Amino acid sequence: MASEQELIERIRKALPPRAGARGLLLGIGDDAALVRPSRRTDWVLSCDSFLEGIHFLDRSHSPDSVGYKSLARATSDLAAMGATPRYFLLSLALPAGKTGNWLDGFLSGLGRAARSFRISLAGGDTAQFPQVVISITVVGELEPGLAVRRSGARPGHILYVSGTLGSAQLGLELVLRGWDRTRRWQPLLRHHLYPQPRLALGSWLARNRLASAMIDLSDGLSTDLARLCQASGVGARLEEPRIPAVRVPAVLQRRGFNRLAMALHGGDDYVLLFTVPSRLEKRLRRAPGAGRLSRIGEITREKNILLVSREGRETRLEPRGWDHFRKK
Amino acid sequence: MASEQELIERIRKALPPRAGARGLLLGIGDDAALVRPSRRTDWVLSCDSFLEGIHFLDRSHSPDSVGYKSLARATSDLAAMGATPRYFLLSLALPAGKTGNWLDGFLSGLGRAARSFRISLAGGDTAQFPQVVISITVVGELEPGLAVRRSGARPGHILYVSGTLGSAQLGLELVLRGWDRTRRWQPLLRHHLYPQPRLALGSWLARNRLASAMIDLSDGLSTDLARLCQASGVGARLEEPRIPAVRVPAVLQRRGFNRLAMALHGGDDYVLLFTVPSRLEKRLRRAPGAGRLSRIGEITREKNILLVSREGRETRLEPRGWDHFRKK
Repeated sequence: MASEQELIERIRKALPPRAGARGLLLGIGDDAALVRPSRRTDWVLSCDSFLEGIHFLDRSHSPDSVGYKSLARATSDLAAMGATPRYFLLSLALPAGKTGNWLDGFLSGLGRAARSFRISLAGGDTAQFPQVVISITVVGELEPGLAVRRSGARPGHILYVSGTLGSAQLGLELVLRGWDRTRRWQPLLRHHLYPQPRLALGSWLARNRLASAMIDLSDGLSTDLARLCQASGVGARLEEPRIPAVRVPAVLQRRGFNRLAMALHGGDDYVLLFTVPSRLEKRLRRAPGAGRLSRIGEITREKNILLVSREGRETRLEPRGWDHFRKK
Repeated sequence: MASEQELIERIRKALPPRAGARGLLLGIGDDAALVRPSRRTDWVLSCDSFLEGIHFLDRSHSPDSVGYKSLARATSDLAAMGATPRYFLLSLALPAGKTGNWLDGFLSGLGRAARSFRISLAGGDTAQFPQVVISITVVGELEPGLAVRRSGARPGHILYVSGTLGSAQLGLELVLRGWDRTRRWQPLLRHHLYPQPRLALGSWLARNRLASAMIDLSDGLSTDLARLCQASGVGARLEEPRIPAVRVPAVLQRRGFNRLAMALHGGDDYVLLFTVPSRLEKRLRRAPGAGRLSRIGEITREKNILLVSREGRETRLEPRGWDHFRKK
């Protein structure tokens, strides 16, 4: 069974861009595509699907959170390029039984997300289908040449994340165990149900040309850092004590919840992972949400990813985040 | 159970565009969205899903035709606005068992369609899912102000279609009866399996400002003409003898295949339906594929759609084409 990366390679090979495809600056393989409709503007395009039984569970996830999260996920790819959201298209397939209250709840969450991210619905299509299938395409904009790709990290650049890692995974683990109805755990579900794309930070980093490479953490740090390193042709050294892992209540830690594993491999945080040349580092103090930035390591010439413990012990960090097509 | 139109109204109401949404010229409700990234260009955006069991049947439709048709369908919305195709995004979910030969076939058909329509893959996403779920977003371009909407038809304008109607439905009926493996019927399947978006004609009509309104026939003449008339606030009079209905072999007519019903209500032809002010009509002689244009009626002030038989008898034509959410 092919990995997601192999599938993408096969798709890329079968569908090479047309010779001289006008204005296509960056095709598949980054967070989003980058095109230049005119000399005055660059556009960022990305699509993401959100599928019942895969990305959400009908019995556990309210239609409101499905609506909110489906747009947050897609919009986060714009944040990862530094773009400002403009429009989105909604492709929605659902069973007849969900066109009443369920759809109202879905549209309510989707609408709140759209207002919050300042993005306008521009079009879409609807169909009837046994499961809920959502596909969202987002369009963002930025000044020509400012988009931050995955491929610009160089040895010596410093690795940052924009917030706590593992929060969304913690929420998911509660849901999967059916503990999400327990009142005391409900505050822990927020990041899983209503993730926030880091739009202000992403756009600030791009405008100020501070980030040499950037990706949003959708599939987990270990997997997404490997993607960034591969695109840049580099490796990384992560300092374990600096990783801002989610706080897990002691009672849940005793029940087997491992904060570090959640922080390293948990998906859906939509935190930004980016690299900064060290001479520019101090300018990050003025970043939006500067207080939540964590310096977690640095980029290396050697193409592997090492995790360095408090005691200085080095271990290879393998990508163990979310991959749709990895052999289970 | 809501109709597709009602669903779209609810979505539109729940997600109004942001006040002053920059450059959004036309939101949901037409063939595609129209945005203006800069003063020099207009962009047309549209998304379409193509779902196993709804838009194709795994046992009947080759992966090659699924790939070809999924892109043809989406690209036809660009033809209907008069835009030139530029990029597309592919959101593809499929079961693990289809990542081998099936995917190769799919990509082969998709790639042939992309080359034929001169459109480049710009990005996408993949996921694992029990059924094949394809969502394609297309981006087209045209000179500012030239896009042809559904809403410009005025009383007295002449109604044209760009080719034979009902061919795709004829193919579908053969498939649904399991007669598609019969060698003699195979030539009749082509329009159903490999539809052609009318890109050259759509773009020519827009560039020459000849079409006052246009739509592609995806859900059938009776349904799509009703949409065009509703958007324009008009009605229409169709002359039945002038409708270019598919030729149906006598043996199939005897088995109940009705050419006129197929032409009026059959979906998936992707023929263009457009209106032209009568003083401009003679310029259509220079249109690409001019020989295949049929003048089928005219636009009226009265807001109903009448079908006039050879004998002059008038009947109301109700929309009986494809609607995902109509009560069966």
